[in-house]
Amino acid sequence: MRATIMPKAHEVHIDNVPDSAIQQPTDALIRVTRACICGSDLWPYNGGPNVEGQRMGHEAIGVVEDVGSEVRTLKRGDVVIMPFANSDGSCMFCEEGLQTACEHVGFFGNGELDGAQAEAMRIPMADGTLYPLEVGEDDALMPSLLTLSDVMGTGHHAAVTSRVRPGGTVAVVGDGAVGICGVLAAKRLGAEQIIIMGRHPDRIALAKEFGATDVVRERGDEGMARVRDLTGGFGVQSVLECVGTEQAIDTSMGVVRAGGAVGRVGVPQYQTIKAAQTMFYQNVLVAGGPAPTRAYIDELLPDVMEGRIDPGRVFDRTVGLDGVPEGYRAMNEREALKVLIRP
Amino acid sequence: MRATIMPKAHEVHIDNVPDSAIQQPTDALIRVTRACICGSDLWPYNGGPNVEGQRMGHEAIGVVEDVGSEVRTLKRGDVVIMPFANSDGSCMFCEEGLQTACEHVGFFGNGELDGAQAEAMRIPMADGTLYPLEVGEDDALMPSLLTLSDVMGTGHHAAVTSRVRPGGTVAVVGDGAVGICGVLAAKRLGAEQIIIMGRHPDRIALAKEFGATDVVRERGDEGMARVRDLTGGFGVQSVLECVGTEQAIDTSMGVVRAGGAVGRVGVPQYQTIKAAQTMFYQNVLVAGGPAPTRAYIDELLPDVMEGRIDPGRVFDRTVGLDGVPEGYRAMNEREALKVLIRP
Repeated sequence: MRATIMPKAHEVHIDNVPDSAIQQPTDALIRVTRACICGSDLWPYNGGPNVEGQRMGHEAIGVVEDVGSEVRTLKRGDVVIMPFANSDGSCMFCEEGLQTACEHVGFFGNGELDGAQAEAMRIPMADGTLYPLEVGEDDALMPSLLTLSDVMGTGHHAAVTSRVRPGGTVAVVGDGAVGICGVLAAKRLGAEQIIIMGRHPDRIALAKEFGATDVVRERGDEGMARVRDLTGGFGVQSVLECVGTEQAIDTSMGVVRAGGAVGRVGVPQYQTIKAAQTMFYQNVLVAGGPAPTRAYIDELLPDVMEGRIDPGRVFDRTVGLDGVPEGYRAMNEREALKVLIRP
Repeated sequence: MRATIMPKAHEVHIDNVPDSAIQQPTDALIRVTRACICGSDLWPYNGGPNVEGQRMGHEAIGVVEDVGSEVRTLKRGDVVIMPFANSDGSCMFCEEGLQTACEHVGFFGNGELDGAQAEAMRIPMADGTLYPLEVGEDDALMPSLLTLSDVMGTGHHAAVTSRVRPGGTVAVVGDGAVGICGVLAAKRLGAEQIIIMGRHPDRIALAKEFGATDVVRERGDEGMARVRDLTGGFGVQSVLECVGTEQAIDTSMGVVRAGGAVGRVGVPQYQTIKAAQTMFYQNVLVAGGPAPTRAYIDELLPDVMEGRIDPGRVFDRTVGLDGVPEGYRAMNEREALKVLIRP
């Protein structure tokens, strides 16, 4: 079968690899019908830590092709969302809805487990991991359903952990696909003022359609001052940090108001957070991490199915497997916001 | 009048100073009937940043002696709790119950405002700051009432910001007076397992009476391993960080479970918090800061008045003003847990 491999930075290949297959009685095998490229795939692409030769991709919708003997809830032919992490569905953390801390958690496309930018995948702990859908594999909602595997759930996690509430004030740091889904999540949770910090016209336009009320194009001190100007000098109650760079966390701490919260979902490329001046003395809460997207599907799916949200609009390019290398290049050069793959 | 002055590290004097007096129409003048020494007073005592010659003390109960022309809710003779910060009582932050972020906040005994370890004090914004009581100035509950000015409210803040919940698992880092009040607060909020990390027999004994279920005397890696042993290997849901040292925050991050929360109330003597390994990847929330004790009085006072909690037991020594220098020495050498002052 064919799968996406990143042998080293700036190199993406579509290679022939051994067919994925059931290994454990709790496994399922899925044929990938939709996958995509994540902003976090660009970290190894740009030379961040990666595993040599790793299989890429962690967001997928697929069709179940085979199940192990102990799989109870899935059968051949089921159309499923594959969240970016596997989870057993039964441990204390899964029961609390924090599947990304599952006692048996694993992350797809990280060198250990199969990657989603491929024809097929082995899914460990399939009952706990996969979320069956009641739609056909080519349903028109597929792009939006695919976002529930990561990007929309991650934007929602930023909004939840930064305690977005009805009538609240929000800043979204970053106009990538996660940030734009963060805008949508904040709007969905009832925020009244949603300031998007970004500068790419197409992305800003989509963010506005998703509910952004204000745009701050400036960065650094100037950008922080603009957010304060827009909020009576106080800053916002909730900051969705959707980038992961040092500048992004510094900006987040610079625009949050006293007693506010920063929800981090950008994989941190920085080592530390300043502990005292803003965070402690202003009683600022900092939370977030890898989103338990598996848990959030329950909450977000009805809104997707009934058309109240359409996060699939973050996809602005579709490729086949052969187009994946070009998709990485386009996302890396910010020509594309998010690339959908039809293997 | 007489007041406590700290001219430099390790020196505490009781000096004659100009009488406190009304300066603004919103001021009140109080005669201090109870004050105390705070763990945070020991930071300047040990050479931390302080203001040369500053008036010390920020916890008091007093009797109103005089009020400015615009004071509406207080009158001469009222017995009042003085929270450690002043607040206008009317800004957005005060209305939300975060008086320590009040637009006009000031901190007593920090070089700007009068200190509480004195015969009298000028209280700015008296209506917003002082909390009138319905008891006589020598009521037997005075020690417990005095803790509502800071130490009990601060322990409660650690418990609230670390999201202590009924049935929850808790670790309290530090067996100072704040930590012990944190135990009491966690118990009051329904925690089922409360692990106190400390090693002073008298303090541990009091912590147990206040609700601690387990004691971890070890520090560093050994202490963290013990907490994990006591919690099925997972760590606790809520950590109350009641010290403020680098070791204390490292221990806090080492004993919190995935999806748990650290509530910090120890004034941080460290600069940064590690951003990635535990905090981000384990979805650990970090919150806390200067406690809005003014807001918490509403919630805690009935429990004190009706005898359900008796945080005043943290006081294990009482002195007059002349005994204050010896009180600092005794607290600094950990001979005394917390020293009550009757000026």
